[in-house]
Amino acid sequence: MSLPRIAVDAMGGDEGVRVMVEGAAIARRRHKDFQFLLVGDEGRIKQALEHHPGMAGASEILHCEDVVGGDELPSRAIRRAKTTSMGLAVGAVKSGEAGAAVSAGNTGALMAMSKIALRTLPGIDRPALAALLPTLQEHDVVMLDLGANTEADARNLVQFAVMGAAYSRIVNGFEKPRVRLLNIGTEEIKGTDALRDAAARLSAATAREDSDLALEFDGFVESDKINRGETHVVVTDGFSGNIALKAIEGSARFVTDLLKQAFTSSLRSKIGFLVSRPATELLKHHLDPNNHNGAVFLGLNGVVVKSHGSATAGGVANAVAVAARLLENKLTERIAHDLAAMGEDALKENGRENGRQSTGKDSPDEAAA
Amino acid sequence: MSLPRIAVDAMGGDEGVRVMVEGAAIARRRHKDFQFLLVGDEGRIKQALEHHPGMAGASEILHCEDVVGGDELPSRAIRRAKTTSMGLAVGAVKSGEAGAAVSAGNTGALMAMSKIALRTLPGIDRPALAALLPTLQEHDVVMLDLGANTEADARNLVQFAVMGAAYSRIVNGFEKPRVRLLNIGTEEIKGTDALRDAAARLSAATAREDSDLALEFDGFVESDKINRGETHVVVTDGFSGNIALKAIEGSARFVTDLLKQAFTSSLRSKIGFLVSRPATELLKHHLDPNNHNGAVFLGLNGVVVKSHGSATAGGVANAVAVAARLLENKLTERIAHDLAAMGEDALKENGRENGRQSTGKDSPDEAAA
Repeated sequence: MSLPRIAVDAMGGDEGVRVMVEGAAIARRRHKDFQFLLVGDEGRIKQALEHHPGMAGASEILHCEDVVGGDELPSRAIRRAKTTSMGLAVGAVKSGEAGAAVSAGNTGALMAMSKIALRTLPGIDRPALAALLPTLQEHDVVMLDLGANTEADARNLVQFAVMGAAYSRIVNGFEKPRVRLLNIGTEEIKGTDALRDAAARLSAATAREDSDLALEFDGFVESDKINRGETHVVVTDGFSGNIALKAIEGSARFVTDLLKQAFTSSLRSKIGFLVSRPATELLKHHLDPNNHNGAVFLGLNGVVVKSHGSATAGGVANAVAVAARLLENKLTERIAHDLAAMGEDALKENGRENGRQSTGKDSPDEAAA
Repeated sequence: MSLPRIAVDAMGGDEGVRVMVEGAAIARRRHKDFQFLLVGDEGRIKQALEHHPGMAGASEILHCEDVVGGDELPSRAIRRAKTTSMGLAVGAVKSGEAGAAVSAGNTGALMAMSKIALRTLPGIDRPALAALLPTLQEHDVVMLDLGANTEADARNLVQFAVMGAAYSRIVNGFEKPRVRLLNIGTEEIKGTDALRDAAARLSAATAREDSDLALEFDGFVESDKINRGETHVVVTDGFSGNIALKAIEGSARFVTDLLKQAFTSSLRSKIGFLVSRPATELLKHHLDPNNHNGAVFLGLNGVVVKSHGSATAGGVANAVAVAARLLENKLTERIAHDLAAMGEDALKENGRENGRQSTGKDSPDEAAA
């Protein structure tokens, strides 16, 4: 069976059409069965396609001129879903014209549009944004939620664990990914009620003798261990996840900036830098977000992948490849299976309100972007 | 006027007596007016003092044999305050025998003991743990709370802003430190109710024409910008602060570990490494936590400084110096002044519960350690 085609929002991202089309073309050179629906300005897409003759038979263009702004409020963007390249790319997944959508546009808008168009899977209360982070090991670590929900109760966290494990199995190939909850200590008593409740539910569900769950639960992890690679899936609420993700990114950039300063501080260190360039290139390669590109909105009736706004064509190609793998490996069916295996106790309504308190309303604009 | 003496918990920390006494001795070589109350096993302290003849006239020993365990629950430690080196060091501040206490022991226990013995300052609801983090600039950035409170409402956050600014003024010398609230985006609508409410209070208080506040409020900051150095004080709840702090530490270690791997991957890169060693030493120096040692419990009737458990003697000396500067510059009086300048509106009770929900109880064991 051939792969369903992938809708690419050709207008999103810092570089727009050229990079998105080139990214799709690179992905297609690696996987000959990829087919695309390129959504955006037809003239500019055709121009970009001229450089990639291999794409001619593999892509259809869905013309539109409107693009969601980088700073556009999600609440405004969702009203423009029928006229913008992002809205139409997500809409193509809803209508079945495509199997997955990839966009490098405004994260908050993409999330809000995807939620409205694709709805959450049966049994999932809230979708979550998951991403891949580099580790000291060969494999990446999956972390979620990264900002789709500023709050999460125990039941949400259990659902995130199921979704993250499914993603890790497909992307990293672990049969039973090791899942931990992000906390401020590893002892049982640490953290919020929501975290302790979620830990108790996950422990009970994975300890059941008849458990058919394709994940292991290892308790809590602190944020300084995320990159060690011993944990395969780190589960957290969107506020803490976004704080951790950006702190990791900022700190890595901080250290490499310091390194640059240090390496240019004297002639001797400049020479040392030149001699050891292959080593620092290796570091750069390992840390380059393009090599870990492809954050995913999990928990929806469909696959939506968010590419970094500043991703290179190679990064976009990786995001496209992630979308294809999730399609091929039936992400949504895996999530449904594991939700069932988790059992009712783990997913019961919370006896009392837990975690960050609800804001009363559910504005799409509060989330991280 | 001579400086009040500093009580040093000589038994806490990974290395114990030798490092703590040596740290005090190094601090004293730099500041001849420092006086110490060394709390712990008299025999071992005397033995350590033999290597530091300059300390003879500058220190008194308060003998005790008990030590708080690294994993000891705060709820247990507080019942042993009268017999442990940590408890007696904090107790010396309460009784006035010392002006400040320095300990490298169990953070949660130190916090719980300090809260009980010293109580919070008038107008402060909850103390907070603040630390110094390196930046790309010359100065460190102050971040708080780092784990004393897993939750914080708008009023708590305003109080943290006042306490953090006072700390930054003393340690970094800024007249009006630039304060920001840690959030998952910089737009006004981002994040939790507590954050938005705190931002509104701080904006209003600093915008008042008659404002005598010695701080500027610059809105929100995302965690990837903490180390840039443009913000002087980063204010957050203890859960998010702990997540951000440890993510920064873990990511910096991750990058330097990768660098080590890269530098030993070939003969060429090994040679490059040797040639550029002065540069990498500079990096190591800048990132070394010993050079930013001295986390502080702010908001108490007294100065309590937490030294890293694994700090070297040089690191301990820095923690002692921080304690002395806070004493000398009358930290608690500065906080009281700024609280008054903040005005009633900024510190009013919250109309409704905000932020992370209360756990109902207030167990000292939930906090980060």
